Amino acid sequence: MNSSETLALSLELLRQPSVTPIDHNCQNIMADRLAKVGFNIENMRFDDVDNLWARRGTQAPVFCFAGHTDVVPTGNLDAWQTDPFQPEIIDGKLYGRGSADMKTALAAMVVATERFVAKHPNHKGSIAYLITSDEEGPSINGTVKVVETLEARQEKMTWCLVGEPSSTNTLGDVIKNGRRGSLNAVLTVKGKQGHVAYPHLAANPIHLAALALHELSTTVWDQGNEYFPATTFQISNIHAGTGATNIVPGHLDVVFNFRYSTEVTAEILQQRVLAILDAHGLDYDIQWTFSGLPFLTPVGELVNAAKHAIKQVNGVEAELSTSGGTSDGRFIAPTGAQVLELGVLNATIHQVNEHVNIDDLEPLAEIYEEILVQLLA
Amino acid sequence: MNSSETLALSLELLRQPSVTPIDHNCQNIMADRLAKVGFNIENMRFDDVDNLWARRGTQAPVFCFAGHTDVVPTGNLDAWQTDPFQPEIIDGKLYGRGSADMKTALAAMVVATERFVAKHPNHKGSIAYLITSDEEGPSINGTVKVVETLEARQEKMTWCLVGEPSSTNTLGDVIKNGRRGSLNAVLTVKGKQGHVAYPHLAANPIHLAALALHELSTTVWDQGNEYFPATTFQISNIHAGTGATNIVPGHLDVVFNFRYSTEVTAEILQQRVLAILDAHGLDYDIQWTFSGLPFLTPVGELVNAAKHAIKQVNGVEAELSTSGGTSDGRFIAPTGAQVLELGVLNATIHQVNEHVNIDDLEPLAEIYEEILVQLLA
Repeated sequence: MNSSETLALSLELLRQPSVTPIDHNCQNIMADRLAKVGFNIENMRFDDVDNLWARRGTQAPVFCFAGHTDVVPTGNLDAWQTDPFQPEIIDGKLYGRGSADMKTALAAMVVATERFVAKHPNHKGSIAYLITSDEEGPSINGTVKVVETLEARQEKMTWCLVGEPSSTNTLGDVIKNGRRGSLNAVLTVKGKQGHVAYPHLAANPIHLAALALHELSTTVWDQGNEYFPATTFQISNIHAGTGATNIVPGHLDVVFNFRYSTEVTAEILQQRVLAILDAHGLDYDIQWTFSGLPFLTPVGELVNAAKHAIKQVNGVEAELSTSGGTSDGRFIAPTGAQVLELGVLNATIHQVNEHVNIDDLEPLAEIYEEILVQLLA
Repeated sequence: MNSSETLALSLELLRQPSVTPIDHNCQNIMADRLAKVGFNIENMRFDDVDNLWARRGTQAPVFCFAGHTDVVPTGNLDAWQTDPFQPEIIDGKLYGRGSADMKTALAAMVVATERFVAKHPNHKGSIAYLITSDEEGPSINGTVKVVETLEARQEKMTWCLVGEPSSTNTLGDVIKNGRRGSLNAVLTVKGKQGHVAYPHLAANPIHLAALALHELSTTVWDQGNEYFPATTFQISNIHAGTGATNIVPGHLDVVFNFRYSTEVTAEILQQRVLAILDAHGLDYDIQWTFSGLPFLTPVGELVNAAKHAIKQVNGVEAELSTSGGTSDGRFIAPTGAQVLELGVLNATIHQVNEHVNIDDLEPLAEIYEEILVQLLA
């Protein structure tokens, strides 16, 4: 029966121990199904990472399902009530590593696509799949490289639905239509070590930096916007001194992070930080780490299609959110595609005994199919 | 001959391995010599600390030699070129633990006293000795307790010469006529731990404290005075965060120190610090450690006698200074006594291969004797 198709494919994928960056045949399982309904299959392996680019149709607009077959490590096996790679159904829940993040979504995508294609063999535009086995790892040879390859040949996505587990309490209650950017820095303020009894021979970097740190921590970086809260600055670590109570330390180390909206850029934030440090006459080194650009898909065709589909399938009014950590959506959005994330509940991701409600699998496939109907039927 | 007396007694004292708080018979060696020239001897043992109170005469004014028989540990024996407790003379220098800090001064005091008493058997007032074996340790059962005992029986010192190594380049070039006070604190500013992505649910103690730390580090506490530089505040240690770059820390630890003049008191400094912390609305704990009250002996009989004696013996114009660390003078000054420190060069104290110039021993005895002449002849 129809209601078991998504579960059946989920089980097949969950039995593959595809701990990042190992795909362990998952992409072939998906590709075989997609090839049968008319998809052109491209395997794009970069270094030790398997990636799948599949496309049905040659015309625009292009609707793309994106996701990953790799899973995080199991952690302590003794803490699992099941074998993480032998999925089991207990009390209406499907247990297994990757059940929530995000193999059931991959199964739902494929089943939804098969059904849609069966009903609309001559759909508008194209349907595509961008699947990697490097989302949970360093994210160097996965989505980034596939996007670069597509950009190089001017192959564009119009809409991209990332099947990350976005839901909080009920399937479809939250659609992530963007993510804040994240920018880290390690700041070392230099002083001159000395004895506290002879401070005129020393230069205390804590004293020198205090007002600049106050200014950084109270600066209003932007006001946010309709979709994003205001950009935030937080110092996570500050250290100076060796424990001796009579020594003026020679340097102060400060680690800070920005979570930033689309109202600023990493470059703007960097310039403003340096301007503050310079205005206080500090002698410093600073090392920046870019851990994710912000992206935003404002309300439009894709968001409306998703909200409509969710409402139609299970009566839920989906909320838009840009909260939480990063996902591969950050690599796709810069191409100009509308990107959103929609999947199962995320309560147990990356934990032992990861699981998903069995009753959410078929509705998710129906939601995905309805989105295809909205956009390409 | 006279010129070997100070050296001979120095060698005898240096052979006693009197690592703090062990006196190892040093006080008995001194007491035997003093008893022979008419001193009344009192051994005041408190817990594991030997103290000697010796006095010749019953009248005021009382001139007291103060000092300690204990020495700091040797450190790495392999780094010594001699046995630290088998004093040796090499190239005009006397090597041994305690040679500079301060057994040669103890020897010079005894020799000076013997000579003075021989010439002035009916001197004015009294000569006293306050010697402890607890100066290099916790300083709980040493000078503090002896002073308490004397105060309880209303026995007063008029002038006190502490034989600490005060000289910098030439014997007698520096007299310490006071010391700054030292006040330590450990401040814990409380915030609320959280995730950097959700700062509205956290309270960052680094951000909360930054302006208060700036204010503390730039406050003018006083202007100092003729003898003291201005009071200084220095943060020696600051720590918050566990290393994770995505966590807002729950608390901030700050260790700071005041070196303060006689223009303020520890209580005033504490009140002003608390007022600043409170003005910034901080939630905090603070632990204070009093490591030494300031004291000052302005120019007067004792300072003048010492300067005159130095000038007469070796032609040096002594400079007054209140710099450097703490000494037992801080416990004696509150009784109302004039206190100063005068002894050999301090370049090698607390180091391996501690040593003193042989040529400085006899002049130091002469200086001490001349001070007695100035004040009690």
